[in-house]
Amino acid sequence: MSPIRKFEKPLGMRDTFPKIFEKKEIIRQTGREFLRLRGFDFIQTPTLEYYDTVGKASAIVDSSLFKLVDSQGNTLVLRPDMTTPIARVATSKLLKEKIPLRLAYFASVFRAQQLEGGRPAEFEQMGIEIIGDSSVYADAEVILTAIHLLKALGIEEFKITIGNAGILDAIIKKNVQDEKQFEELHSLLVRKNVVGFEEAVISYHLPVEKEKTLLSFIEDATEMKSIREIAKYLYEKDAFIYMEQLASILEIADATSYIAFDFTLASHMNYYTGMLFEVFATGSGFPIGNGGRYDGLLQVFGTEVSAIGFGLRVDHLLEVIPQQSDEKNEVLVLFVATQLAEALKTAEKLRAQGKRTTLQSIEGLENLAAFENHFAEIVRIGQGGNVHE
Amino acid sequence: MSPIRKFEKPLGMRDTFPKIFEKKEIIRQTGREFLRLRGFDFIQTPTLEYYDTVGKASAIVDSSLFKLVDSQGNTLVLRPDMTTPIARVATSKLLKEKIPLRLAYFASVFRAQQLEGGRPAEFEQMGIEIIGDSSVYADAEVILTAIHLLKALGIEEFKITIGNAGILDAIIKKNVQDEKQFEELHSLLVRKNVVGFEEAVISYHLPVEKEKTLLSFIEDATEMKSIREIAKYLYEKDAFIYMEQLASILEIADATSYIAFDFTLASHMNYYTGMLFEVFATGSGFPIGNGGRYDGLLQVFGTEVSAIGFGLRVDHLLEVIPQQSDEKNEVLVLFVATQLAEALKTAEKLRAQGKRTTLQSIEGLENLAAFENHFAEIVRIGQGGNVHE
Repeated sequence: MSPIRKFEKPLGMRDTFPKIFEKKEIIRQTGREFLRLRGFDFIQTPTLEYYDTVGKASAIVDSSLFKLVDSQGNTLVLRPDMTTPIARVATSKLLKEKIPLRLAYFASVFRAQQLEGGRPAEFEQMGIEIIGDSSVYADAEVILTAIHLLKALGIEEFKITIGNAGILDAIIKKNVQDEKQFEELHSLLVRKNVVGFEEAVISYHLPVEKEKTLLSFIEDATEMKSIREIAKYLYEKDAFIYMEQLASILEIADATSYIAFDFTLASHMNYYTGMLFEVFATGSGFPIGNGGRYDGLLQVFGTEVSAIGFGLRVDHLLEVIPQQSDEKNEVLVLFVATQLAEALKTAEKLRAQGKRTTLQSIEGLENLAAFENHFAEIVRIGQGGNVHE
Repeated sequence: MSPIRKFEKPLGMRDTFPKIFEKKEIIRQTGREFLRLRGFDFIQTPTLEYYDTVGKASAIVDSSLFKLVDSQGNTLVLRPDMTTPIARVATSKLLKEKIPLRLAYFASVFRAQQLEGGRPAEFEQMGIEIIGDSSVYADAEVILTAIHLLKALGIEEFKITIGNAGILDAIIKKNVQDEKQFEELHSLLVRKNVVGFEEAVISYHLPVEKEKTLLSFIEDATEMKSIREIAKYLYEKDAFIYMEQLASILEIADATSYIAFDFTLASHMNYYTGMLFEVFATGSGFPIGNGGRYDGLLQVFGTEVSAIGFGLRVDHLLEVIPQQSDEKNEVLVLFVATQLAEALKTAEKLRAQGKRTTLQSIEGLENLAAFENHFAEIVRIGQGGNVHE
């Protein structure tokens, strides 16, 4: 443990400076208005939750949880995701009021980093959940909301890859010999390591038919019809009807150009049970968001009800939203003490015109020229008459 | 340690439901636009900071800090205030760019509660800091910004009580016998226990002149002239000139009706060095905000520069902002599967008119009547023709 320097921040913790803050704020405001208009209700949950409830129910691995012990001796966690707290709130109170619930949030989530790798340990998510609607229209609404929200943010070049956790799990499980092989193949797909998947399948020396099935599955993963053929003896028939309906709804809604199916899509969030998706945008090397159906999660909180949602990562959105103009357009009203009343009046007048106006006494400045440099327009009051520059 | 029930939250942790969220959001948006227009730049700092830097520099008692140990073995704290993180950020980076700095923030801060007392352990603050301006105009700007921000939020009945930490400390120190008496009297004033203060002074059996000074100080604490007389042999003469200038500026700025001086005002935030204030509003039993000058704090981070700011508590603001109308004005577009395209079109048309519109398939509903009950207007699509109710 090396000594901490005065200005240092914990591993993965970041400051947001004014320019980035403004960009974030545009994302938040656009997102908020957009989602509100579509009938989503915003909620906030606490930063700290009990480890035994939300901590354990979350899909985040234990080593990524920030844990602490409170004065009562209970273990708390900084919320590692928002889906689990929302499941807690919905089942404890809100589902008694309205079904289905359409909820939305903006929130920081926390995932401890073990190494200096530039990955944030706190990051902001903006997301929605629809709870209590098991129809395919809820799946479609979630995907369409993601598409139109991204467009409202000015993002045009993006792709939503759609898979199905139930179908994927079933196909792998029926063709491997044990749980260990299942876990290995699944985790290779979470890391999008298709070559690794094929190598692993071959290394298992499975019966010829099974090996062939798994390899053609990888080959044809983006073709719904082929995958349906591959999986035709499985119990997942309903899931295909569901996926085909989803594809047809998205076509009717004119969303086809934004989506692609890929049945190898797998998530480290183990609560997904059905459809799941990832959002990629030109300009970010990371998925800017993901979502899916998690009909099992609410059972943890004692309610059997279906749920589906998505979360977008504000830090990755920052990389892909259109640049704002960087023009300075701020006004500085500089005054000497004797002219305070006049200065106050002038500043208020400028602000009433919508101009961003800083009021500053000459007396409070150490370096006048350096300070003035930050403003597009300077109004001097009480230095040999009022001069408007 | 009793077992935790499924829905429980840690002590002092709260959920914010949609209606309260909307009220909070109005406060945030109004505050943000107001402060931006006045030249304040918003920043965000991380939730977690090092205990050895921000944790120790903060004025919050150790037992109120939420502490945890990270994977490197360092002790972290959940930020207990925003003034200290802003001091860290300002001294490490921003002060190299612009002096004075005008910064603003919205943030949750964390103070561990020891007992079930209904006090929140996480609450939101909205505040500003002016860093690098030691003139009295910065003091006035901070107070005037608080006044006009409250008015922008629709709050009219409030009072700002202004004191001075330097003058208060000097008067008490010069008239007691030891540090212990100083601490005791100071902490009685923090709790606004004036009777306790008088009783304690008498119990000390101080020299007659000193006892008399302390008792008249309490008696005349709201009269600047009397306090100046009481303190005339102290070194705090400059502080009085400062306070009188402040009073005169606030008069010129037409703020007299919102302010009152009270030299007994004391804060548990021990970093205040000069002027300090508290904001009370009709309708809340707690101060809705406070602020002051803390010229010493930035030294902790290696920079000798003056600073002043305030923070308002969003939870207490909620109690005093004018009620919003509770009218339901939302539209529900209910559709059957075959009419999806038509339903999508209708919903988008309503949203383009600014109407908050939920699109819901009949197939996804378990209890149609209960769900419809949440909406002011229902548009049915595909149930024997489109009916507009």
